[in-house]
Amino acid sequence: MSSELGNNIKVSIFGQSHAEAIGVTVDGLPAGEAVDLDRLQAFLQRRAPGRLDVSTPRKEEDRPHILCGVLNGRTCGAPLAAVIENANTRSQDYEQLKDIPRPGHADYTAQVRYQGFQDVRGGGHFSGRLTAPLCVAGGICLQILERRGIEIAAHIRSAAGAEDRPFRELGEDPETLEELRRSPFPTLDQKAGENMRREICRAREQGDSVGGVVECIIQGLPAGLGSGMFGGMDSRLAAAVFGIPAVKGVEFGAGFEAARLRGSENNDPYRVEDGRVTAGRNRAGGILGGITTGMPLLFRAAFKPTPSIGKEQDSVSLSAGEGRKLVVHGRHDPCIVPRAVPVVEAVAAILTLDALLDPPAVLPGRLRRGGEKNGDRDT
Amino acid sequence: MSSELGNNIKVSIFGQSHAEAIGVTVDGLPAGEAVDLDRLQAFLQRRAPGRLDVSTPRKEEDRPHILCGVLNGRTCGAPLAAVIENANTRSQDYEQLKDIPRPGHADYTAQVRYQGFQDVRGGGHFSGRLTAPLCVAGGICLQILERRGIEIAAHIRSAAGAEDRPFRELGEDPETLEELRRSPFPTLDQKAGENMRREICRAREQGDSVGGVVECIIQGLPAGLGSGMFGGMDSRLAAAVFGIPAVKGVEFGAGFEAARLRGSENNDPYRVEDGRVTAGRNRAGGILGGITTGMPLLFRAAFKPTPSIGKEQDSVSLSAGEGRKLVVHGRHDPCIVPRAVPVVEAVAAILTLDALLDPPAVLPGRLRRGGEKNGDRDT
Amino acid sequence: MSSELGNNIKVSIFGQSHAEAIGVTVDGLPAGEAVDLDRLQAFLQRRAPGRLDVSTPRKEEDRPHILCGVLNGRTCGAPLAAVIENANTRSQDYEQLKDIPRPGHADYTAQVRYQGFQDVRGGGHFSGRLTAPLCVAGGICLQILERRGIEIAAHIRSAAGAEDRPFRELGEDPETLEELRRSPFPTLDQKAGENMRREICRAREQGDSVGGVVECIIQGLPAGLGSGMFGGMDSRLAAAVFGIPAVKGVEFGAGFEAARLRGSENNDPYRVEDGRVTAGRNRAGGILGGITTGMPLLFRAAFKPTPSIGKEQDSVSLSAGEGRKLVVHGRHDPCIVPRAVPVVEAVAAILTLDALLDPPAVLPGRLRRGGEKNGDRDT
Amino acid sequence: MSSELGNNIKVSIFGQSHAEAIGVTVDGLPAGEAVDLDRLQAFLQRRAPGRLDVSTPRKEEDRPHILCGVLNGRTCGAPLAAVIENANTRSQDYEQLKDIPRPGHADYTAQVRYQGFQDVRGGGHFSGRLTAPLCVAGGICLQILERRGIEIAAHIRSAAGAEDRPFRELGEDPETLEELRRSPFPTLDQKAGENMRREICRAREQGDSVGGVVECIIQGLPAGLGSGMFGGMDSRLAAAVFGIPAVKGVEFGAGFEAARLRGSENNDPYRVEDGRVTAGRNRAGGILGGITTGMPLLFRAAFKPTPSIGKEQDSVSLSAGEGRKLVVHGRHDPCIVPRAVPVVEAVAAILTLDALLDPPAVLPGRLRRGGEKNGDRDT
Repeated sequence: MSSELGNNIKVSIFGQSHAEAIGVTVDGLPAGEAVDLDRLQAFLQRRAPGRLDVSTPRKEEDRPHILCGVLNGRTCGAPLAAVIENANTRSQDYEQLKDIPRPGHADYTAQVRYQGFQDVRGGGHFSGRLTAPLCVAGGICLQILERRGIEIAAHIRSAAGAEDRPFRELGEDPETLEELRRSPFPTLDQKAGENMRREICRAREQGDSVGGVVECIIQGLPAGLGSGMFGGMDSRLAAAVFGIPAVKGVEFGAGFEAARLRGSENNDPYRVEDGRVTAGRNRAGGILGGITTGMPLLFRAAFKPTPSIGKEQDSVSLSAGEGRKLVVHGRHDPCIVPRAVPVVEAVAAILTLDALLDPPAVLPGRLRRGGEKNGDRDT
Repeated sequence: MSSELGNNIKVSIFGQSHAEAIGVTVDGLPAGEAVDLDRLQAFLQRRAPGRLDVSTPRKEEDRPHILCGVLNGRTCGAPLAAVIENANTRSQDYEQLKDIPRPGHADYTAQVRYQGFQDVRGGGHFSGRLTAPLCVAGGICLQILERRGIEIAAHIRSAAGAEDRPFRELGEDPETLEELRRSPFPTLDQKAGENMRREICRAREQGDSVGGVVECIIQGLPAGLGSGMFGGMDSRLAAAVFGIPAVKGVEFGAGFEAARLRGSENNDPYRVEDGRVTAGRNRAGGILGGITTGMPLLFRAAFKPTPSIGKEQDSVSLSAGEGRKLVVHGRHDPCIVPRAVPVVEAVAAILTLDALLDPPAVLPGRLRRGGEKNGDRDT
Repeated sequence: MSSELGNNIKVSIFGQSHAEAIGVTVDGLPAGEAVDLDRLQAFLQRRAPGRLDVSTPRKEEDRPHILCGVLNGRTCGAPLAAVIENANTRSQDYEQLKDIPRPGHADYTAQVRYQGFQDVRGGGHFSGRLTAPLCVAGGICLQILERRGIEIAAHIRSAAGAEDRPFRELGEDPETLEELRRSPFPTLDQKAGENMRREICRAREQGDSVGGVVECIIQGLPAGLGSGMFGGMDSRLAAAVFGIPAVKGVEFGAGFEAARLRGSENNDPYRVEDGRVTAGRNRAGGILGGITTGMPLLFRAAFKPTPSIGKEQDSVSLSAGEGRKLVVHGRHDPCIVPRAVPVVEAVAAILTLDALLDPPAVLPGRLRRGGEKNGDRDT
Repeated sequence: MSSELGNNIKVSIFGQSHAEAIGVTVDGLPAGEAVDLDRLQAFLQRRAPGRLDVSTPRKEEDRPHILCGVLNGRTCGAPLAAVIENANTRSQDYEQLKDIPRPGHADYTAQVRYQGFQDVRGGGHFSGRLTAPLCVAGGICLQILERRGIEIAAHIRSAAGAEDRPFRELGEDPETLEELRRSPFPTLDQKAGENMRREICRAREQGDSVGGVVECIIQGLPAGLGSGMFGGMDSRLAAAVFGIPAVKGVEFGAGFEAARLRGSENNDPYRVEDGRVTAGRNRAGGILGGITTGMPLLFRAAFKPTPSIGKEQDSVSLSAGEGRKLVVHGRHDPCIVPRAVPVVEAVAAILTLDALLDPPAVLPGRLRRGGEKNGDRDT
């Protein structure tokens, strides 16, 4: 029950970091949607390790193999399944972790929950590697959304204490978003990116790691998506984003800052522009009462620093019941935030498509008789 | 699909602010659990309006009437249903809002989604009043948890910019938590509370409103609760907390601050204490890999300022398609944060009990033959 | 988790036979749908006890009180909640059943599962009385469907061994269905109905009871509803129908008879009629591969004889661990089948509306921008 | 949403008959369970085509490749994924079916629903071939259940009009069940099996096909499993069994026959035997009020005759909108019932394990503190 996402499309992630393979099934994807494998691969490349001087030297092809659900380049209505082989694994690095858990990792909690049966190699099912199949699902959803004018992009809002400028509340122009997608270290302000990278390198040199904040924007969303209370876009997105390993906080629009504002500062006054209802600012982050306003949906996710650090740490031997010094070996990112950027976009894409597939809040008076106009295609 | 919470217990909220009644059904509550109605009422009183100089003068009894699911003072295994009548409604205050939506409210998004059929009176189903039945469900769950040594409490971490001290990461003593529960304006530091109240009053005098942050602690949780990815305690709790109206951010443990820390500062080093594995600090907020560590679970929720303010605001007439000045009448809290405190506790209690009812991660080798020892009760 | 039905609309039943009330919440009903309370009441009357010489003399008003979810006679998008008070209860009839379970009832299994905490009065949550709120939900769904040209009706296909003629596979004319709905003992062949009633009376005189089969037809369904495997209309309908107390079998189209046919007899050959694809017969019962064909959907449900009989039966004392003779007192239908007819229709209506609200299998290329044409209503 | 099964364990089937592969993911399997691949293969062999003179000559290895979720021969708590390659496909047989649908198949309904994007080759996702991964999931569940004394077996109750004797209501001895599992054409009465095979061959010679009924028994179940209304074991099992292609009816215990019995004949009188509550007969099929009684759970599923027959049939050209004669080529079973036997067992195993993992109806008073006794294993 742990690895499934979505109400209308069901994204189900499988695999362990050092199992034979990792992968994903997506049930409920609309049929007839073109899947561009090259663009999907390019999207996955953004998450892949080894692309940056600031990430882990482990290199994986991360090339998904689509087993079913796509026919002649289009989704066919049957569940899609995609598999990524785990080629480049070095399992010997992880042997001791079952007894001496790494601080900040799931080693200890998994041991308690699964009573020693869990796969500890590379973090097992808790590894950040599981975000690769999530990106396969998300990358396909992104293509479906883009054809309908919905754009999703994210950047590194902050890392190691250095800050990028925030997204403009009223939206960014498409070129800016496209540039972010092309960048291996996506920031809106290049200078900010350089500061971040310098800080990340410094931490790595000291055998340490840093965290950061990813900010995501969804543009072109229709108003009226999502519903009240626990069906809200914020509820659903937050649940999904907290499913990404290392996320410790999620906020929408003004977020925690809203708690420091007055109502007169935080309310977005409405106005009419080109015959459409809009607002002059977007503190709400595009969501009111759980429902989209039609303005850009904006949210941020806080990532903790990579728990695997080179420095010696205090841990315990679970079998001996006493303290142990621990030095974590293996290959690790000093900061996973740059690679988390497409993962956040992927999750946003899945949840956005999922919400688009929600049952209608008002049912049309006249039903379309299936079969009347055979072969009728809207796409 | 909007108003339901939980995987194992299903909490379903119904009602509109000015409908005949609001209420809740809870399906899947364990049988045999005593329900103390006086304690439940006392818990609800903490959320009730009109208790504070800083809240709305609308007074409601908020007395839930349990229709079924309880027999001789104990849950009987059948769904519990409870109803609260809406007595003190003044619907005429809300007539114009269907055409001229209040900034910061769900008026506009509900209008788009429900195409004019929604109940706008008092915010309808989007009203904060719907947190009363949520507290009925949560209050019952709290009683079930307390009998098993699990304690939940929350305080106002900040309001109107004034700050209370945070909860101690390693836990608070029971008396402190009990004191918070007794206080109409629960802060750990009395002075901080006074500052907050002063600021809230000032905002009200200016026809404005303020927001704040509620911090919640869950103590006595067993380690090993929740599971990876989207089954994590953080995912599940966050989805629920964002279902509370006005929440714009949720964070666990160090939260957004973790993004500014180094791994060596954010990892909680393990140690053995009295034969148990624990840690000297709790930046993780009691969750690693989505699974509880056995240390206190700590999270914070950011509430935006009440959108209903006395000041004149810019809005639009949806029918005329042009701008309008709007002054919101009616009775409103200048700050809903004090009343949100028990609501956060309620949600935490529901989700905690829900997680306790998760299927076991490891199945016992020998099944209990139901019927062998009839009448065998563990409670 | 036990008392909830539906994927898109969530029908949640609550109450025990002798609790203060029984009721239902329906989350996810489309907004803007007129609810005709008189027609709803007329529908409920068909299920109500005491209407027939062959049913229990217990009389209940079964008048649902709608607490919320309906505004000015139309659904408003918020969950609908309806309550029926339990007025006419005689709980003393049931005292001994906790120790000496009635054969054929849930007394024993509920005792094992709920360890004595369950409400045994009148069967508690397992009572057939819980079908009244199910009919409230179903009756509202029926009105929504009828406005869209979908008609649902059922009849007593057999009772006490006497048989009515089956529904015509290609559909019945509306007058026939209307007549069934008006009849207190709905059969297509009046003579068959008289035979059944005679047999039922004979069984009652002998302190015994009888079962029967209800057949249901859904006409006017579009083709293309439902999906493969576990999303099939048959899977979903069967799960719901088995939720009605006393159902022991469900079959679609030719059903168990299909197992005795050859492929050449059971396949429905296609033909074109008035430009539409149809078939000259309907052994499939309107479902192929879980998806509706556009022909009438036909299914039957087998109801066991009422387990409460006047004859002395063998049971056991659970406390003493030895045999006991049992004579069941109280008021009971010698045959619940006539009253089950509208319940089957109700369940069919809920599941049909639920399927109509399924996400589209093919997503339109152009999204409707919510908010562009405000107030646009399709109903 | 169509291809997923289970509340606590989530079985998700993927693949099309002629896609590169078919497979299954199982999320929520308890950790620490041994998976015997040889026994799993032997179980799958029972479903595999080409094993009998009465089945299709298409031969497939049906050798599942487990990608993850199993470590050192035991489940590790992470989702299990298994893939079966589709080697022996002859897709040219199916080209015309998109325009001229086969009667009795999902060709037409899938065309309406998926608007021509569906994979028609070999029936696509609607193919009986998808029951192979279902058997992978079920075969693993069977092993878990057997270790806990729960046995599941099925036989051909009838085929082509010839009848086997029914299972004994009070249970069969283990040897009988083991013999059924070893038989390629499992009947309790050998003579009956011979009659069936003769009739099946006769139908095949005439270019026709036949259906049949599979009966399944679950022995060793604890009493108290499942819950009322829509959470009943019957509801949940029926939904799953109707997900098997070609099933048109499901009944429990006396089933449709119960509708012809009197209460005094259908009620199972209780008695005490060896200190346990039991009954002298089992018309209920082991379920009362949706909850298991502790007696054998018995159900039957009716399979329609294979729709693919050699005889010429009437169909239509969807593009031309007029009638066409159709002769179905390809390799097809004249009767799929023998191969359906392990599929029914598989579904029963999945749903039984799923119910065993239901939340407890009564919560223990004292919680097990995870982490107190590390490494404590119950299996």
